[in-house]
Amino acid sequence: MRSSSRGDVDPFIVMDVMEQARRLEQAGRSIIHMEVGQPGTPAPKAARAALARAMDDGALGYTVALGLPELRQGIAALYADWYGVELDPARVVITAGSSAAFVLAFTALFEAGEKVGVTEPGYPSYRQILKALSLDPYAIPTHAADRHVPELPDVDLAGLIVASPANPTGTMLSKDDLGALIAACQAKGTAFISDEIYHGVQYEGRAVSALELSDDVYVINSFSKYFSMTGWRLGWMVVPEGHVRRIERLAQNMFICAPHAAQIAALGALGARDETEAMLANYRENRRLMLDGLPKAGFDKIAPPDGAFYIYADVSDLRQDSRAFAAEILEQAGVAVTPGLDFDPVRGHTTLRFSYARSTDDIAEGIKRLTSFMAQRG
Amino acid sequence: MRSSSRGDVDPFIVMDVMEQARRLEQAGRSIIHMEVGQPGTPAPKAARAALARAMDDGALGYTVALGLPELRQGIAALYADWYGVELDPARVVITAGSSAAFVLAFTALFEAGEKVGVTEPGYPSYRQILKALSLDPYAIPTHAADRHVPELPDVDLAGLIVASPANPTGTMLSKDDLGALIAACQAKGTAFISDEIYHGVQYEGRAVSALELSDDVYVINSFSKYFSMTGWRLGWMVVPEGHVRRIERLAQNMFICAPHAAQIAALGALGARDETEAMLANYRENRRLMLDGLPKAGFDKIAPPDGAFYIYADVSDLRQDSRAFAAEILEQAGVAVTPGLDFDPVRGHTTLRFSYARSTDDIAEGIKRLTSFMAQRG
Repeated sequence: MRSSSRGDVDPFIVMDVMEQARRLEQAGRSIIHMEVGQPGTPAPKAARAALARAMDDGALGYTVALGLPELRQGIAALYADWYGVELDPARVVITAGSSAAFVLAFTALFEAGEKVGVTEPGYPSYRQILKALSLDPYAIPTHAADRHVPELPDVDLAGLIVASPANPTGTMLSKDDLGALIAACQAKGTAFISDEIYHGVQYEGRAVSALELSDDVYVINSFSKYFSMTGWRLGWMVVPEGHVRRIERLAQNMFICAPHAAQIAALGALGARDETEAMLANYRENRRLMLDGLPKAGFDKIAPPDGAFYIYADVSDLRQDSRAFAAEILEQAGVAVTPGLDFDPVRGHTTLRFSYARSTDDIAEGIKRLTSFMAQRG
Repeated sequence: MRSSSRGDVDPFIVMDVMEQARRLEQAGRSIIHMEVGQPGTPAPKAARAALARAMDDGALGYTVALGLPELRQGIAALYADWYGVELDPARVVITAGSSAAFVLAFTALFEAGEKVGVTEPGYPSYRQILKALSLDPYAIPTHAADRHVPELPDVDLAGLIVASPANPTGTMLSKDDLGALIAACQAKGTAFISDEIYHGVQYEGRAVSALELSDDVYVINSFSKYFSMTGWRLGWMVVPEGHVRRIERLAQNMFICAPHAAQIAALGALGARDETEAMLANYRENRRLMLDGLPKAGFDKIAPPDGAFYIYADVSDLRQDSRAFAAEILEQAGVAVTPGLDFDPVRGHTTLRFSYARSTDDIAEGIKRLTSFMAQRG
């Protein structure tokens, strides 16, 4: 059967690591998972309890395309609480994870063939979703030396996607830097898409939302990270008032609605701040262990992350092939890590991403193993 | 902010009906819902019980992109059971509803700008999703006189989407007709996509799967209709063996995975055939009432549907404006119905779709109201 070139997207390189980790575990080896980008915790108890009640009561059929009105209100209230921003719930669109939000944003904003800026390093799926939608991802390299603040290039871009805190680096943009980027985009007619999926997972100050600076942006977020609900596939997007109907029509046709059960659970999660703050305390302790242990083990070219649950290490003085290095660490140390190539096809040969989203016991054991692996390596 | 032409998709016309119905209900009127395309029943008890257990036990994080292996096996077993087809579970892809399956299929198969055939009347979102993906939907009118069997046009099509049982007509393709269409597509290099979402919901004989005729097709199905799980957003797609990796990479990037909770519930639903067959018995009784009552009321240009839960009525001798007619029926009879324009932009001015997916009491009351409305109309 025929196939398209747009559908020829790259595989995730970390999948090889995960498959190899699975094989080793099946063979009886113990593996510490520092490769995965998701919390080890389930959804908050309050979220699961809300769904258990709803399953007894109602049919859980389709919701309206934009999502349950009370959930949209709850999210608007979060913007008042987190940022002091007054947000009209009518601008909040509930989506099937941030993934669906990207698909909606890209189709609503861009024509086939247009260039959209993505940072390198960055979340690999931006590039692949753009490609699948016949768009042209334009790489903007960022640098550890200036804490990965991107600069708008001279080329004409239809859009720019920026994440803060960023994956894989954990760096956050200051209000000034974010404001300057948004202003530069608006001056050139470049749509600004702010990926705020790691908001709430922060250690030094708080992340700034693009909505604090402008209403003329797309903001994408999710219940996956701070609310620990990855597998539920529930996210949201805030769009300019004039784009709501447009997004509604696209969502009706492309998704019908986000999963109803997940919407109910998310409503419960919004009210479970004691539980989510306890998870954050866990990441904070993990981060402390990592920032102490990784340099001692020999991974010393790292920048302290402001948020998210990753450390992006420059390993150029240790190895020039991050894929082979990750395989070696998995095989010999029993620790799964992600080669930087997934995030940066150009410079990722010499970087690794360590995730600390799992339990503190796991992180402590992982650091012990990495330390003795590096010591033996000499 | 900028916006794209691809994102300018049409609204659902039925939404006006639904909004007006909501207003009337809020004002205290009783409305019978024959406009909605979803069961009034919740997911099977066994499905909800499976999820309740799983929520206590596990974290419900991301699943692998192609879905839970045991669910893919369960679906493969369904093909043996329903069609006597031996299907490798590796070819089954779990998707976030059939909606996500269409997005995956269209991006995997077609380049921007290519023409894809859709039947008129037909499910409106085919056209809109194609448009959002920068594809060019090509209308193929079908006719009640030959029970809506589509003919492949002379123009070069990159793909063809066919549904059997069809929405809105409920007609099924015979094995010969389906086989001839698939052969004609394969001879011309046109990808054949079989929408089998209403399989299982059938009254005269059984629907034929495209997989009984060829492995070189895309087959799309869902837990929404026969398994009564619309709001859970869970579907599946069977693809040729050589396309599995391609779809996996696209799904990883565009969706990460289908909702984990819904996958667990779907596993429960697969084992609840007593419950789903009871729902089918309900639709069967509703259909009997409709086929008896609608002609008596004056809607006599209808064809008995083989499957699904819709009756598509030609009302050309009653009214030339289906939108106004639907509004009138809602206002005066208190019955919400769908104007044909959603399914056929050309000839839908003179057709209405009646859904009989709700309870038998509702259907009986709806027919009573329609009968007296038509009698007063004279």
